[in-house]
Amino acid sequence: MLVGDERLDHLLAENLRIIQSPTVFSFSLDAVLLARFSYIPYQKGRVIDLCSGNGIIPLLISPRTKVPIIGVEIQERLADMARRSVSYNELTDQIEIMQQDLRDIVPILGKGKNSFVTCNPPYFALESTSIKNENEHLRIARHEVHCTLRDTIQVAADLLKQGGKASFVHRPERLLEIIDIMREYGLEPKRIQFVHPRVEREANTILIEGIKGAKPGVKYLPPIIVHDAVGEYTAQVRELLYGKE
Amino acid sequence: MLVGDERLDHLLAENLRIIQSPTVFSFSLDAVLLARFSYIPYQKGRVIDLCSGNGIIPLLISPRTKVPIIGVEIQERLADMARRSVSYNELTDQIEIMQQDLRDIVPILGKGKNSFVTCNPPYFALESTSIKNENEHLRIARHEVHCTLRDTIQVAADLLKQGGKASFVHRPERLLEIIDIMREYGLEPKRIQFVHPRVEREANTILIEGIKGAKPGVKYLPPIIVHDAVGEYTAQVRELLYGKE
Repeated sequence: MLVGDERLDHLLAENLRIIQSPTVFSFSLDAVLLARFSYIPYQKGRVIDLCSGNGIIPLLISPRTKVPIIGVEIQERLADMARRSVSYNELTDQIEIMQQDLRDIVPILGKGKNSFVTCNPPYFALESTSIKNENEHLRIARHEVHCTLRDTIQVAADLLKQGGKASFVHRPERLLEIIDIMREYGLEPKRIQFVHPRVEREANTILIEGIKGAKPGVKYLPPIIVHDAVGEYTAQVRELLYGKE
Repeated sequence: MLVGDERLDHLLAENLRIIQSPTVFSFSLDAVLLARFSYIPYQKGRVIDLCSGNGIIPLLISPRTKVPIIGVEIQERLADMARRSVSYNELTDQIEIMQQDLRDIVPILGKGKNSFVTCNPPYFALESTSIKNENEHLRIARHEVHCTLRDTIQVAADLLKQGGKASFVHRPERLLEIIDIMREYGLEPKRIQFVHPRVEREANTILIEGIKGAKPGVKYLPPIIVHDAVGEYTAQVRELLYGKE
């Protein structure tokens, strides 16, 4: 079932397993944070996860909901890993992985027909420096090769019905740009959460939720602090990763 | 020296005293947070504090700088309290209190001539509900009676030279509006800090610094947590209020 350097890793808090590979795709803490941050319906609607990678978000949210979850991933190799993880966890009835360019999916999934979108997009613009040292799989997952920030937000907004929710995880330096683009497409920012690597450090990750057609007004959630003074995960993050102790 | 129900309160961290009155004006933790958040030059330029109230910000920052500080306050009664506090602390050489409508001060203080502005403006729009239960002094200090958010940001931006800094304290629900107005007047947001009443609660105060004509790019500073689990000030806030222990 595993290919090349793939591993079958545990998702401890959810009692699931996921196929990963250091040279193709491994999920990050950011995906775990996005899964926890996102509002997920229990039995109505469906969830579309854009830029789904190895399917980490669909897997993480599946124990919290009965609704169908669709992961959209452009890379055949990653979509295949995601499908095999879904099968391994016996979740094929709930999770579908579509290998598609997200710029093509609005007609497929229905414009204005969906109620929940999650997305952990590539963080880096194409002109970034680190790009040359990466293989094609990592480059596409991390850089805006196949979709820009604007593409992902526009697609999320187009998929949603009025009152539908989209949540994103990204870097703080792009937050104001994200807010501007969200508003341009009628996705009003409603909840923002900052993630700080340590309590005395600047935020290095942001989580943001927008609601299509909502009134303005943002709540800034309690901060997430990742590491304590000695560099260990905080109790807050251990609970997200491993469940209640 | 004291009038009516005025008190002479200690500013513990700075070894200064300040005249206050429960029915006219008492400074808030927000003013202390703004004073600490603001970049204050040590010996070049001058600092203009808009909506200065009883002069709390000029007094708080005076020990950190040799530059002149000008407090602008529209209410005669508060400007008078501020002047008496300045005299009591023997700071008349450094701090000047101008009783002026801030909408008139740009020609007086010089358009594009200043390097630092601080402002703790009224938080509430005029249509707010609490307005009828307050006396005139508190009403003007808390509500946008004499100046709107747009006025204060525009005046700050007009006062500043290119590269000059303005910092504001306000409520989170108005942050996106503040950012939009700042950018409209060429004041690029550069540093934002959220203040949470407790670690598990949403932010109820924001601090923001803009630099005139700067490139986009915001740093989100470590959060400030005001109270601990038993409702006492955290060590972080005690240090701001009372100095190092």
